[in-house]
Amino acid sequence: MSTKHGFYYKEGHEERLFIDSTPVKQVIDRLSSPPTPFILYSLNQFQHNVNTYQHALNDLAPIRARLSYSMKANYNPHLLSILKSSKVMLTTVSGGEMQLALSNGFEPSKIIFNGNGKTDESIQMAIESGVLLNVDSLFDLEVILKYARQLNKIANVLIRVNPILGDSNVHAYNTTASKTSKFGTSIDDLESIYKLIEDNHDKWIRLFGFHCHLGSTISNTQVIVECVEKMIKLFDMKRFHHLRFLNIGGGLNIDYKRYANRTANEPEEHISIPTIEDYVQAIKQPLQSIPNSIEIIVEPGRSLVANTCVIITRVLGQKQTGPIRQLIVDASMTECIRPALYQAYHHIDTVISSPQEERIAYDIVGPVCESGDFLGRERCLPKILQRGDFLAIFDTGAYCSSMSSNYNMRPRPAEYTLDEHEQIKVLKKRETNEDLLRTYCID
Amino acid sequence: MSTKHGFYYKEGHEERLFIDSTPVKQVIDRLSSPPTPFILYSLNQFQHNVNTYQHALNDLAPIRARLSYSMKANYNPHLLSILKSSKVMLTTVSGGEMQLALSNGFEPSKIIFNGNGKTDESIQMAIESGVLLNVDSLFDLEVILKYARQLNKIANVLIRVNPILGDSNVHAYNTTASKTSKFGTSIDDLESIYKLIEDNHDKWIRLFGFHCHLGSTISNTQVIVECVEKMIKLFDMKRFHHLRFLNIGGGLNIDYKRYANRTANEPEEHISIPTIEDYVQAIKQPLQSIPNSIEIIVEPGRSLVANTCVIITRVLGQKQTGPIRQLIVDASMTECIRPALYQAYHHIDTVISSPQEERIAYDIVGPVCESGDFLGRERCLPKILQRGDFLAIFDTGAYCSSMSSNYNMRPRPAEYTLDEHEQIKVLKKRETNEDLLRTYCID
Ligand SMILES: Cc1ncc(COP(=O)(O)O)c(C=O)c1O
Ligand SMILES: Cc1ncc(COP(=O)(O)O)c(C=O)c1O
Repeated sequence: MSTKHGFYYKEGHEERLFIDSTPVKQVIDRLSSPPTPFILYSLNQFQHNVNTYQHALNDLAPIRARLSYSMKANYNPHLLSILKSSKVMLTTVSGGEMQLALSNGFEPSKIIFNGNGKTDESIQMAIESGVLLNVDSLFDLEVILKYARQLNKIANVLIRVNPILGDSNVHAYNTTASKTSKFGTSIDDLESIYKLIEDNHDKWIRLFGFHCHLGSTISNTQVIVECVEKMIKLFDMKRFHHLRFLNIGGGLNIDYKRYANRTANEPEEHISIPTIEDYVQAIKQPLQSIPNSIEIIVEPGRSLVANTCVIITRVLGQKQTGPIRQLIVDASMTECIRPALYQAYHHIDTVISSPQEERIAYDIVGPVCESGDFLGRERCLPKILQRGDFLAIFDTGAYCSSMSSNYNMRPRPAEYTLDEHEQIKVLKKRETNEDLLRTYCID
Repeated sequence: MSTKHGFYYKEGHEERLFIDSTPVKQVIDRLSSPPTPFILYSLNQFQHNVNTYQHALNDLAPIRARLSYSMKANYNPHLLSILKSSKVMLTTVSGGEMQLALSNGFEPSKIIFNGNGKTDESIQMAIESGVLLNVDSLFDLEVILKYARQLNKIANVLIRVNPILGDSNVHAYNTTASKTSKFGTSIDDLESIYKLIEDNHDKWIRLFGFHCHLGSTISNTQVIVECVEKMIKLFDMKRFHHLRFLNIGGGLNIDYKRYANRTANEPEEHISIPTIEDYVQAIKQPLQSIPNSIEIIVEPGRSLVANTCVIITRVLGQKQTGPIRQLIVDASMTECIRPALYQAYHHIDTVISSPQEERIAYDIVGPVCESGDFLGRERCLPKILQRGDFLAIFDTGAYCSSMSSNYNMRPRPAEYTLDEHEQIKVLKKRETNEDLLRTYCID
């Protein structure tokens, strides 16, 4: 792996955006007039993130801890092969994700299947193959037991617990452990689940531990510490003698604003976001009291994959609308719905520019016929930007491609990376109009 | 066309949901254990909506008015063939939509191409084929002129004007004519566009009229009346002698709560939504003063197609979460993002139930691992609902399928209708896992 990884600006006569050791502008030139938007991956950054997590988790020794990647953040199969060779587990949330994990050769015991509403087919697949199932609720357990009996197999399960805790700065849609959250079972309601498991233990079901997940974009590690403290108390080894895993979920935020000072209209106070190491160190303390036999699982998505991608987009034009200067680009909410859905911040900046250029404030909007189709508000970018200039939308590796749509009949974009010889490698082809119409039955 | 059209409940011993003259339960049975969710279309309802608009517009005589369908609401090609035989125009918002309209045999002069950020390729396609282009801004006009010259063709255009008006009850994302909207040119800024058009008139460009669109889910026809009044003043026939069209956009809301009393926890005041006839009658008055030669275009999406579909979903289970009773179903934000994105209301009810059944209040949520994945809050549905029971999510013909995603690796659903013999016809096949991975380049 090259020492340089990820996306960064090299300052000099001109400020250029780099991917690993290569200027992004060079990648664009080599693609020669590529349709935009497209997505550029630094798989070196991804490998680096995996390594960072694994080193930090190793430092918890003698506590044993495993990394599981939350596939919903980005299910690009090329990520999976990196994860497999690094012996990372996978957390899946649908039959489709589980199927992809299995067909990519992940051992079933290294796959977790989570969800508040599992279909019959996906439960059967999990039991049959030996995937670890998260029991979300009493009804979920009943269906799992039904199919374990029917298949004459033992279902290996964790219980998803709702510890009723959360980071108050997180968007409601990213909070998954509020009092009224649809996920998991509150600690007070666990008894009925325990009973049903006890009645069938070692026959149709084996309880391997507990799972929780507080939500996403969490910057306050203190709530995770509290959560671990609450969860440890559940390990009653006398009652359930197979207990082996404490899965504390994912949720660590990333520093979406890391370059924000380059483009801020009025620089805001920069809230510091814990690094992967900070996060792992924070949970060390409460883990001291855990039984020796227990292994920790952490299952991040965002903090593993978000900073491995930029979306490259072309400027289409500028326009003055009352007090607002609009910069219209050809990327949109179809590739990056996070600003529309969560009012999320993604950094946006030039691929190449001169430091001398005057910058002015723009609202950056896409071409989709919908007012929710904006990508950034009040961003300072060069005044001279014109049609054809390239911009990068940063940290778009998580919850962008996986949430993308074809609204306005927009094809989903191509995805590229650089291989070990710094040659362009196509990870995913841009959709054609034909792809969009493929499943329609036209007579 | 059968006299019965659309979705309605027939009361009797049991309350059953019908599509046209057929119980939905019968459709489900004939599909025999269909994967859910799936989408059911009443194309009779669609034809009825088209007819209703066309009759209402005919009643404006001697004022001439045309109907144009806003394809972004739902681009199912089966809708297009109905529109073509009814001589409806199409409003498109991307190269992909324009291409689909052309390849389905729509005359270019009956296609409008709108957008605040048009790509070079789509502008070329529009000029070359003779599609009517909406000029959104000065930069947009400059690109249009560049390609008209290059192709040695005349571009036929309307100017999209921002009249700075709107219905205050509309969600910000559905408002497209605020002071800071990204769409169109304010009346005060039109002069520079006029000048550039005059310089090239009859050589590279012909101005055929004006376009405006206030936004979507508009229930207050008064703002549309004001808008028409403002727009009429722009018709300076001396300055531009080709002026022929006033396109007043779409935006009429539909009565999403029409069945709400069936399931309301506490029945709210029912806000009355204008019918298609009300809407057309409302604009009659200001149109009296329009020059004879001008034709009106209305380009609805939602009010033509929303009520032509239901999503059929299965209950997966029930669960108590603190004070909230949750009903988990297998449909989600991937098929219907409107509740998450706009806090929109979609009616949800049983496909079959007995009127004697006790109803209790539920939050109806999907299986996607995301707290934004809810479909309805506080809906009264039968207490006895259990895994496998079928529900319908109403009025999901507009902005549901066209905005759908594969988040959580969920396949996009099958779409069915009944043909003229009440036989099931597949409009769209359910995606397979293979479809989801088709454009990835796996080595
Ligand atoms: C159960 C579960 N685990 C892990 C994650 C990953 O969260 P993040 O991407 O914020 O790390 C999610 C995503 O919300 C999740 O639902
Ligand atoms: C230009 C234009 N015309 C018409 C429509 C259709 O609007 P609606 O579906 O609300 O009728 C839209 C959608 O927002 C639009 O952008």
